[in-house]
Amino acid sequence: MTITDDLLRNNQTYAQQFKSDQLTMPPARKVAIVACMDARLTIEPMLGLNTGDAHVIRNAGGIVTEDVLRSLLISHYLLGTQEILIINHTDCGMLTFRDHELRDRLRQLTGKLAVAPSQFLAFPNLERNVAEQLLKLRSHPWMPQGISTRGFVYDVKSGRLSEVEAERQLKAA
Amino acid sequence: MTITDDLLRNNQTYAQQFKSDQLTMPPARKVAIVACMDARLTIEPMLGLNTGDAHVIRNAGGIVTEDVLRSLLISHYLLGTQEILIINHTDCGMLTFRDHELRDRLRQLTGKLAVAPSQFLAFPNLERNVAEQLLKLRSHPWMPQGISTRGFVYDVKSGRLSEVEAERQLKAA
Repeated sequence: MTITDDLLRNNQTYAQQFKSDQLTMPPARKVAIVACMDARLTIEPMLGLNTGDAHVIRNAGGIVTEDVLRSLLISHYLLGTQEILIINHTDCGMLTFRDHELRDRLRQLTGKLAVAPSQFLAFPNLERNVAEQLLKLRSHPWMPQGISTRGFVYDVKSGRLSEVEAERQLKAA
Repeated sequence: MTITDDLLRNNQTYAQQFKSDQLTMPPARKVAIVACMDARLTIEPMLGLNTGDAHVIRNAGGIVTEDVLRSLLISHYLLGTQEILIINHTDCGMLTFRDHELRDRLRQLTGKLAVAPSQFLAFPNLERNVAEQLLKLRSHPWMPQGISTRGFVYDVKSGRLSEVEAERQLKAA
């Protein structure tokens, strides 16, 4: 009995009580969330979102990678989202290592080389990282100017979001 | 008053009742979920997961991109996850367009060229797409052999997960 089997049993219970109701493909609240994959972040309850309300895009760190830009462009142009929130968080694993250390470790452990991923995108400063992700987003040639893009740090001890002032962070560097 | 402002107000309510308790950085159930960003998928309730239980990685389609491999390697090697679930779903937006159509549309709408994203990764067959993502995962040189990797289709009408038999899908092609 694996954890996966256990989760599948949980899904049977979920499906018994499930009501798809008026859920449609475009997110009801026209918002897309980009957040870290961290297990302590449960995005919908944290923001008071219901099923069907928002696109949720997550990766290690909550980084605006090419994959996240791909997802956000689909989210906006095909499914109508108008606001984007980027959420990083305190005590993030990405603050605890450096790219080259992990790459060297994986090569040693496996005895194999790999072309991709070419980077792990660890970062040393949380607020500055959020500001840089906002900058990547806002400067992309296909990202419409009218869209709202705001960045936040989630405190895993208090459950509270704090907004990052991107311009101040980037000037301070 | 934007949707974002409204979500921030919701977060204040969330934080008032928040108990971080024993939540730690490594996911308690040692599992990582890769799923589509679709608003109709609320991953934790769907699988009976609590806050702190699982890494959740999401993008348009639930595709094993380089960014997802990056996140999964960090998840396993730095934070100890041992099982991976890939979840695609019925009525997915990725079944409704083709990459070159969207790229042409963005160029026309914005009047600008962009180098990245180089692909949008739309796909025509759901089960086959899940099987291909499992294959990408299992064949990566740094992905350990001992890890459990299973793929599923989530039915947005019933709330139910169905497992994809990867080998059969890939042979049938």
